[in-house]
Amino acid sequence: MADDDESRDLTCPVPHQAGGLVQLAHGGGGRAMANLIDDLFGKAFANPLLNARHDGATFDPGGRIAFTTDSYVVRPLFFPGGDIGTLAVNGTVNDLTMCGAMPLYLSVGFIIEDGLPMADLERIVISMREAAAAASVTIVTGDTKVVECGKADGLFINTSGIGRLIGDHAIGPRAVRPDDVVIVSGDLGRHGIAVMAARENLGFESAIESDCAPVVDPCLALMEAGIAVHCLRDLTRGGLASALVEIAETAGIAITLEEDAIPVRNDVRAACELLGFDPIHVANEGRFIAFVDKVDAERALAILKEHEVSQGAVIAGSVQASTEGQVTLQNAFGSTRAVDMLSGEQLPRIC
Amino acid sequence: MADDDESRDLTCPVPHQAGGLVQLAHGGGGRAMANLIDDLFGKAFANPLLNARHDGATFDPGGRIAFTTDSYVVRPLFFPGGDIGTLAVNGTVNDLTMCGAMPLYLSVGFIIEDGLPMADLERIVISMREAAAAASVTIVTGDTKVVECGKADGLFINTSGIGRLIGDHAIGPRAVRPDDVVIVSGDLGRHGIAVMAARENLGFESAIESDCAPVVDPCLALMEAGIAVHCLRDLTRGGLASALVEIAETAGIAITLEEDAIPVRNDVRAACELLGFDPIHVANEGRFIAFVDKVDAERALAILKEHEVSQGAVIAGSVQASTEGQVTLQNAFGSTRAVDMLSGEQLPRIC
Repeated sequence: MADDDESRDLTCPVPHQAGGLVQLAHGGGGRAMANLIDDLFGKAFANPLLNARHDGATFDPGGRIAFTTDSYVVRPLFFPGGDIGTLAVNGTVNDLTMCGAMPLYLSVGFIIEDGLPMADLERIVISMREAAAAASVTIVTGDTKVVECGKADGLFINTSGIGRLIGDHAIGPRAVRPDDVVIVSGDLGRHGIAVMAARENLGFESAIESDCAPVVDPCLALMEAGIAVHCLRDLTRGGLASALVEIAETAGIAITLEEDAIPVRNDVRAACELLGFDPIHVANEGRFIAFVDKVDAERALAILKEHEVSQGAVIAGSVQASTEGQVTLQNAFGSTRAVDMLSGEQLPRIC
Repeated sequence: MADDDESRDLTCPVPHQAGGLVQLAHGGGGRAMANLIDDLFGKAFANPLLNARHDGATFDPGGRIAFTTDSYVVRPLFFPGGDIGTLAVNGTVNDLTMCGAMPLYLSVGFIIEDGLPMADLERIVISMREAAAAASVTIVTGDTKVVECGKADGLFINTSGIGRLIGDHAIGPRAVRPDDVVIVSGDLGRHGIAVMAARENLGFESAIESDCAPVVDPCLALMEAGIAVHCLRDLTRGGLASALVEIAETAGIAITLEEDAIPVRNDVRAACELLGFDPIHVANEGRFIAFVDKVDAERALAILKEHEVSQGAVIAGSVQASTEGQVTLQNAFGSTRAVDMLSGEQLPRIC
């Protein structure tokens, strides 16, 4: 279309790239899209279900399943410790895990801005392939759209996922009970700070890498050990605070958090102070909380510590009966303050 | 963040809207996002699975399933015969149907541009609720992201879907055989022309409405009648031509299409001539092709004609053995020409 071509010429300087650039035709449903799918996505993600080249993948998931979706709009696309592709696989793998499921299959939907260097797309696709292999999931179906230059921001990725539920009991906010303890799986805030530093060129990005990682192994290990996990929640946007408040409100219970028990690396704490952030509000991409009965607490902690991604796990809080959901932070001196979700926007496009 | 606020002030004039505007905080994982989810999505899509407020939905799909995904980037968001919400539900419902599945569950991922009028989002969400009800599917899990003004184009929606496979035999390109006939389910080109007209203000938009609709009922009726449907394919981006070429290449067969049999409304044909489009390349959102053995052809046609969405079904082509996939268009005088996929971009952002 003439108007799109003109606007591209005017507003989108085209850097010289050996591998070329993604163009509108790559999303047009014709030959260029078929070639992109065959040459890049088909080769990188090759598996029998994807290779069927149909409108969707067909399989038997084998009983009760979890189904989840997330769109990823992180800026910049590449950051210390990962990129949007790593994030898009691990984020959805972790959401399935939080439902008490073994992640099995992912879909991927790309929304690409006209002019994205093909080399960037290739690098991200390779990251997705590697992250999928590491988490033992298969990318079985996909979709590609291309929008005009200036109508997106490089690349957005949606992944949806299907996993097979492991246990018979419901894992979720409504299963949380008084006398549960809250286990935090490791140090908080690295993903948010790493992305923020890469975005704003704050100078400490080399030291702080995102914690982006799949957490499926330690969570499945808890369930396989017969520990009654009442709720799991990954600590992404809004961080630990927002996750706890949402669970407290949904479950109608009170949660008390021990401030000194919450693990935060010194460099992350310093960066948070510099930026005016509270680490319990900062996003993570490889951290979760587990609610288990206090009688199971020490055994659960020992299991989590056996896995690298959760070797820093600690018991950081406890659940009390309450008629209204509330979260309280208690410090070493016994003083307390109420914890709320973020009320504004702290870190847009962190995932 | 300061820089985002500044760029918003400078570049995004904020129209006065009674219902307000979507803001970055609505995607931040905090209180504003929780309120948006509760007040809009939660109320519009309310169902027990969604209401669980967990990282995903859990259920038993009951055996073999189809799993599919599509992102929707149509411009403009509203067009004669539908909007991006209608499209996002029907498109994924139809993809599941094309796999031979009864659509059951959808996920929805919103990527919203800061500044989108809340009234527009509400209208689109209501469209999705109505389309889901019409197709008997349930929206069970979702995700919301907001990006800065100028970094998206109003709204992008991803829907992924799960359906239960109906028959035991594989439905797909590789099941197509010589002696199959190609049934086209109705007149072609209305969606593409309706969106194009709305976008470019071409003046004939009032007469041509998108064909956007769920095609699940006639397709299930074919299968329930015991007709061996070898392949189904909806005729979206790239139109009839691209669908046939992809199937011919995947199956390694030849397809001959009778030009005079292909149904195109006169007003659509006139618009195509004006715009320089071939109707067999134009996108549809409520049209599909079915490959069935020629002995089943008349019975299949009669079943399709019983459903409003496919009452214009015709036999428009046939399959021949071939060592290489090819599609040929034959006119009433017996002359033929090869059909290919679109080689460039005809109608960007048609779905």
